[in-house]
Amino acid sequence: METVGIALLGVGTIGSAVLRMIREERGRIAERTGLFLDVRWGLARNRERVVQAGLSERAATTSIEPILADPSVQVVVEVLGGEEPAAAYMKRALEAGKHVVTANKEALSKHFAELVAAAREHQRALLFEASVGAGVPLMVSLRQLLTTNRLHRIRGIVNGTTNFILTLMAEEGVPYQEALRQAQELGYAEPDPTADVEGYDAAYKLSILASLAAGRHIRPEVVERRGITTVTPDQILDARTRGGAMKLLAEAELVDETWRLRVRPVFVPASDLLAHVRLNLNAIELTGERVGTIVLYGPGAGPSPTASAVIADVLDAVRFGPALLPNLEPAT
Amino acid sequence: METVGIALLGVGTIGSAVLRMIREERGRIAERTGLFLDVRWGLARNRERVVQAGLSERAATTSIEPILADPSVQVVVEVLGGEEPAAAYMKRALEAGKHVVTANKEALSKHFAELVAAAREHQRALLFEASVGAGVPLMVSLRQLLTTNRLHRIRGIVNGTTNFILTLMAEEGVPYQEALRQAQELGYAEPDPTADVEGYDAAYKLSILASLAAGRHIRPEVVERRGITTVTPDQILDARTRGGAMKLLAEAELVDETWRLRVRPVFVPASDLLAHVRLNLNAIELTGERVGTIVLYGPGAGPSPTASAVIADVLDAVRFGPALLPNLEPAT
Repeated sequence: METVGIALLGVGTIGSAVLRMIREERGRIAERTGLFLDVRWGLARNRERVVQAGLSERAATTSIEPILADPSVQVVVEVLGGEEPAAAYMKRALEAGKHVVTANKEALSKHFAELVAAAREHQRALLFEASVGAGVPLMVSLRQLLTTNRLHRIRGIVNGTTNFILTLMAEEGVPYQEALRQAQELGYAEPDPTADVEGYDAAYKLSILASLAAGRHIRPEVVERRGITTVTPDQILDARTRGGAMKLLAEAELVDETWRLRVRPVFVPASDLLAHVRLNLNAIELTGERVGTIVLYGPGAGPSPTASAVIADVLDAVRFGPALLPNLEPAT
Repeated sequence: METVGIALLGVGTIGSAVLRMIREERGRIAERTGLFLDVRWGLARNRERVVQAGLSERAATTSIEPILADPSVQVVVEVLGGEEPAAAYMKRALEAGKHVVTANKEALSKHFAELVAAAREHQRALLFEASVGAGVPLMVSLRQLLTTNRLHRIRGIVNGTTNFILTLMAEEGVPYQEALRQAQELGYAEPDPTADVEGYDAAYKLSILASLAAGRHIRPEVVERRGITTVTPDQILDARTRGGAMKLLAEAELVDETWRLRVRPVFVPASDLLAHVRLNLNAIELTGERVGTIVLYGPGAGPSPTASAVIADVLDAVRFGPALLPNLEPAT
């Protein structure tokens, strides 16, 4: 039995779910893999929050330094969210010889090439299954497809909040503001919904997927982005009359050797599987020259699916190390 | 650069596609992975067929013996189809210290536990992504989900031929015999369509998926099986009137600690994504306690998607060896 020392950066909703799931599953995981997961550190702005999340006083830290200095930490799990300090912490963890697992789409999409380069230089794993589509096995699927396929199109519904709002507007005929309010009440939308409704969240995710397909870092800033705030009830009802639906689509397409990335509300006809993706679900379509079109569908958010993907990544990091790193040239 | 010696058992439609794709892609694969794929042997009942497929006289064999005796062969790719001699060849290849990659659902579903045990004993890889859903990344997805999830339901459309026939019957109002004839003309159905239309093919695939979820070999013989030959045009039109569709569903469900496996034509309502899977496409739904319900969708057959998955498996076999073996107890 090998013990895997873990440091958890962030003990919010996702971090707490990771802790809880490790506690519940580690016996079974140890039995199946021979790896015993042990969370040695929890980092938060406030040490009390770490203790409230269920770790000991001794394990609580507000600084990354003791984590980097602790040789028993093999894997740093980053679930802080936001660009900084998350990106800087991940880079320093890789430089200190730790594997890194992250669920943070913003930090990853803005620093993807730099983080992959640091992982390669220090021969460590960098895994990020939960950064797009939560528990939907997108990254393992992409890795497999890219072995023998050049992908030339990625299309999908990658933001559950806006899909929930558009579904409510279409099926219950409620206006945007009312649908947003319901999404907020259910915890699907933040008090400040900008990142979701203006398409930033979708742009981060699309940037990650397109970067992997292109083999080159494509920054989120180059995504042409339009959110759902300008979609009218008339457009939505008209789409429904035609048998389809208005959807916030994230789309990356390779045309004449150039990738074009867009996030925008568009009409999706009934013949397209994406028209039937309701509520806060996600669906991502990958098109490759040999494999044709593959769609992956499922809950794209939520503490439980996200924690599930994070823990699978922790085990893969230890077992396969840098062998799973993507090919990624810097942004041009 | 490391050379990977490959022996190809079977040079039919799939075997030829594997050969062609290796020839076209090996430069790019070598660049990305450092592994150079080299097909050393082609096995067929007739040596001329091997030469026609594009291998040299020297590489052609009708016997497994020179392959097993050749230390330069690291990976045996089995695309013969059918139970025997495929299953016996795979077992002997593992015993001879070769990794095995297969696309053969029948041999795998009937000898799954025995083959996994042989692979484990000899510390070799046994990979089978193409055995269900061709290029749809089902096995990598299942492997990831099973790390932290107990799956309790698998449901899906796993046979493209019957789905094509049912789609034609529904959308063009043609009777079964006419739809079957069109499927045969397009090469989607065999001259003897029994394995598809009576649900044997779907039962093999369901047995493989359910075995992985259960961690125990569940033989295809235990699948309750009914094909599509008894589906009437009335049932199909009635389903369409209700907004849904008749589909040949493969379903495995864990109820009171017992897995029940069924293949049968059932009505699927419009609210279910599976109702919208048309023509010869496949879709498989996996439900786990933590991750919720995931659906994978795509072309479930065809030389190009199948060869794409086979080659990805060859590379994973060499890179990760027995680390990717499933937990699989013998059938009870």
